[in-house]
Amino acid sequence: MGTRLEGDDVECDLIITGGTVLTMTPGSEPLADGAVAVRSGEIVAVGGATELLAQSRPATVLDAGGGIILPGFVNTHTHLAMTLLRGLADDLPLIAWLEKHIWPTERVLMDAETVALGTRLAAAECLQAGVTCVCDMYFFAERVIEAVTAAGLRAVVPEALIDFATPSCPTPEDALVKQRELLERYRSHPLVVPAVAPHSPYSVSAGNLAKEAELAEEFGAPLIIHLAETRWEAEKVKAEKGVSPVAYLADLGILSERTVAAHCVHVTEDDLDLLAEFDVGVATNPVSNLKLASGVAPVPQMLALGIKLGFGTDGAASNNTFDLLRDAQLASLLYKGISGDPTQMQARTVVEMLTIGGARVLGLADRVGTLEVGKRADVVCFALDHPRTVPVYDPYSHMAYAARSSDVRHVVVDGRVVVRDRALVGTDVEGLLAEVREAAARARRLLAT
Amino acid sequence: MGTRLEGDDVECDLIITGGTVLTMTPGSEPLADGAVAVRSGEIVAVGGATELLAQSRPATVLDAGGGIILPGFVNTHTHLAMTLLRGLADDLPLIAWLEKHIWPTERVLMDAETVALGTRLAAAECLQAGVTCVCDMYFFAERVIEAVTAAGLRAVVPEALIDFATPSCPTPEDALVKQRELLERYRSHPLVVPAVAPHSPYSVSAGNLAKEAELAEEFGAPLIIHLAETRWEAEKVKAEKGVSPVAYLADLGILSERTVAAHCVHVTEDDLDLLAEFDVGVATNPVSNLKLASGVAPVPQMLALGIKLGFGTDGAASNNTFDLLRDAQLASLLYKGISGDPTQMQARTVVEMLTIGGARVLGLADRVGTLEVGKRADVVCFALDHPRTVPVYDPYSHMAYAARSSDVRHVVVDGRVVVRDRALVGTDVEGLLAEVREAAARARRLLAT
Repeated sequence: MGTRLEGDDVECDLIITGGTVLTMTPGSEPLADGAVAVRSGEIVAVGGATELLAQSRPATVLDAGGGIILPGFVNTHTHLAMTLLRGLADDLPLIAWLEKHIWPTERVLMDAETVALGTRLAAAECLQAGVTCVCDMYFFAERVIEAVTAAGLRAVVPEALIDFATPSCPTPEDALVKQRELLERYRSHPLVVPAVAPHSPYSVSAGNLAKEAELAEEFGAPLIIHLAETRWEAEKVKAEKGVSPVAYLADLGILSERTVAAHCVHVTEDDLDLLAEFDVGVATNPVSNLKLASGVAPVPQMLALGIKLGFGTDGAASNNTFDLLRDAQLASLLYKGISGDPTQMQARTVVEMLTIGGARVLGLADRVGTLEVGKRADVVCFALDHPRTVPVYDPYSHMAYAARSSDVRHVVVDGRVVVRDRALVGTDVEGLLAEVREAAARARRLLAT
Repeated sequence: MGTRLEGDDVECDLIITGGTVLTMTPGSEPLADGAVAVRSGEIVAVGGATELLAQSRPATVLDAGGGIILPGFVNTHTHLAMTLLRGLADDLPLIAWLEKHIWPTERVLMDAETVALGTRLAAAECLQAGVTCVCDMYFFAERVIEAVTAAGLRAVVPEALIDFATPSCPTPEDALVKQRELLERYRSHPLVVPAVAPHSPYSVSAGNLAKEAELAEEFGAPLIIHLAETRWEAEKVKAEKGVSPVAYLADLGILSERTVAAHCVHVTEDDLDLLAEFDVGVATNPVSNLKLASGVAPVPQMLALGIKLGFGTDGAASNNTFDLLRDAQLASLLYKGISGDPTQMQARTVVEMLTIGGARVLGLADRVGTLEVGKRADVVCFALDHPRTVPVYDPYSHMAYAARSSDVRHVVVDGRVVVRDRALVGTDVEGLLAEVREAAARARRLLAT
């Protein structure tokens, strides 16, 4: 940060100012009355507001109104389109939930159009919650990409592969073909990172897992996988393969620094060592893991081992929102309470996991996750204008314990203002909500027959 | 509910309509296109909107805009004025937090004026979060009452007693005098229930505890006490009295159906039986208990025993908000996750605890907690106009998992509209926030010297 030369003019098209800047670079102090200057989507200066404004004539000044300016949040694991199933079924054991509600509904509801609609809804919710980057895992990747790019949301988007027919691919071979097309087409997209996503160690054969790893390696792409989510999975893999799910993937040669492993709840100490050794990124999903009673991932131990770690919401069907800040705050409280140690998961750690931590998990730490010169401008302004948001003694504490996603005032992704004064820019929200209500009514009818 | 005679005209001054009504009466179904009619602060009819609107000419129609209409939330345990210490110190062990930060700040900061200011801030935040009734525990009760009644918030307000000097009382004897005055003056106030509050079994002598119980009995008033919050407390009482904190109070004759016991984290099965036997109301504070690493109260077991149970935020210094809905949602997730049983703390149970459950804890179930004829009109309208709030398949699931306090659109307390279109009615919020920022700056200066 702050590598701009003193006295130089700052050429920029956007300045985000009027608040305290948390750059989230290691060891940085909060920058009161700070500003972030952006040119063509790239951060070109971070410094004092007075100085930066004097040295530049930006086309746009985005005023945080005395709030907090920080990097956008990174949601490291989700299934965007499943937001259409939000609240369809709750308070159920995992298998009943999946087999009696989620899968039957997906079978009748989730065609390409519906996935596009659900993703549009999800993207709108994410941006308003301060989430500027997501890692999706679903089907009809092209339609997902259309929806997120139209909204202006940065995203890692795979086509998921599983050993049976999906809504988009009759066979895993079809998925492999689609994945290769995706990787070729989007390899240098400004907002989208194409990826591969074998569903899990228990739903994809060893042969297909190996093919996925090869494809990911060929393109240097992220490989996204559910891993060690439930006790059932850990016991099944142990029974069938003789080792834990993590060790199984390590033995197959699947794990690498490009692996995004979602959940990692049921992991042994040896598993944690493997995750560290292979530099795997872990997407922890505290709310989904609690709601489905899958358990509690050993996040403090992962942090101690230096494992790359970010938060994920999982799909809205098991959350039931994309309110990543809420989920991070819940995790901070959860680990203190169940460990008996109130010094765990401190405020700054939580904000780091939400931003640069998540970026590291997705392999995007060179591009986003902090506010520093040379990175793309993914920036969120939190307002401090509500009875809940005063006083503020410490901005990290404020973000970790008192802020809510409803305080998100402005959001910038890749230099584009996508939320201004709490409203989505260029989205017909009422029209979108009406379409969603219709789709939900259709789902109800389909399920009733 | 719905006891209004058919065809009768409905005399009322306010109708709340335009949404699905959750009355929260036992066994009731959601009432689509429902309405609540209010006359002089009392609910006079609950029914279909079309019919009720045709039968009445109210001065005011409050339109929920297609949202959800339900009873206001009841915060069963807090220290309102401590909101001024929000974020002053976090991520610390309880004793360091209290002795090095909270108590020194309270000593220099908390005079009558500051308590009034902190309570005004807290009341504003509570109302905007859909909380219509709180149980406070602090000092300068008269100033607390001024602040909550000016805001239009229903409250149980004690003067706290502890065996050493408090900001308002040099001795416990002074507190007893102040409490009697309070009980006499406010015994039939429309919004305020005066109460007594011995701080805890470990900070108030057996003699003073007995005096408090006598005073509460004489006036039929609630007796509010911290109970079995920490392992330290349980061990201390056990060492000094030979029994658990709950058994100690039972032996002293303190427990009754008017007792509001905050926390009850470190309780045995025998303790739970005592709480049930004496019909004690328990205020569970999931966020505070996690944040201070006090532990996790056995809420599902309490529910199974039929113990009266409501949620509390505790003071904002250990939470750091009055966002009771967030806390309830967190509890729902927490108990599923740590028990391994996703059918625990189901959506409707959570909404019941937030409303009628809390009212029962405070002895106010005859007055508030459900929407039915004869009760006072404490009503909240939640909007469904955000990308996070669609679709809705089940309104209870929506409240328990997807709604946020920022969706609170209108709030009515005792028939008075106190929040309309998300804004506090008759409160100069900017002026209030400015006063609070000044007080926080003063706190910082005082602590620096």
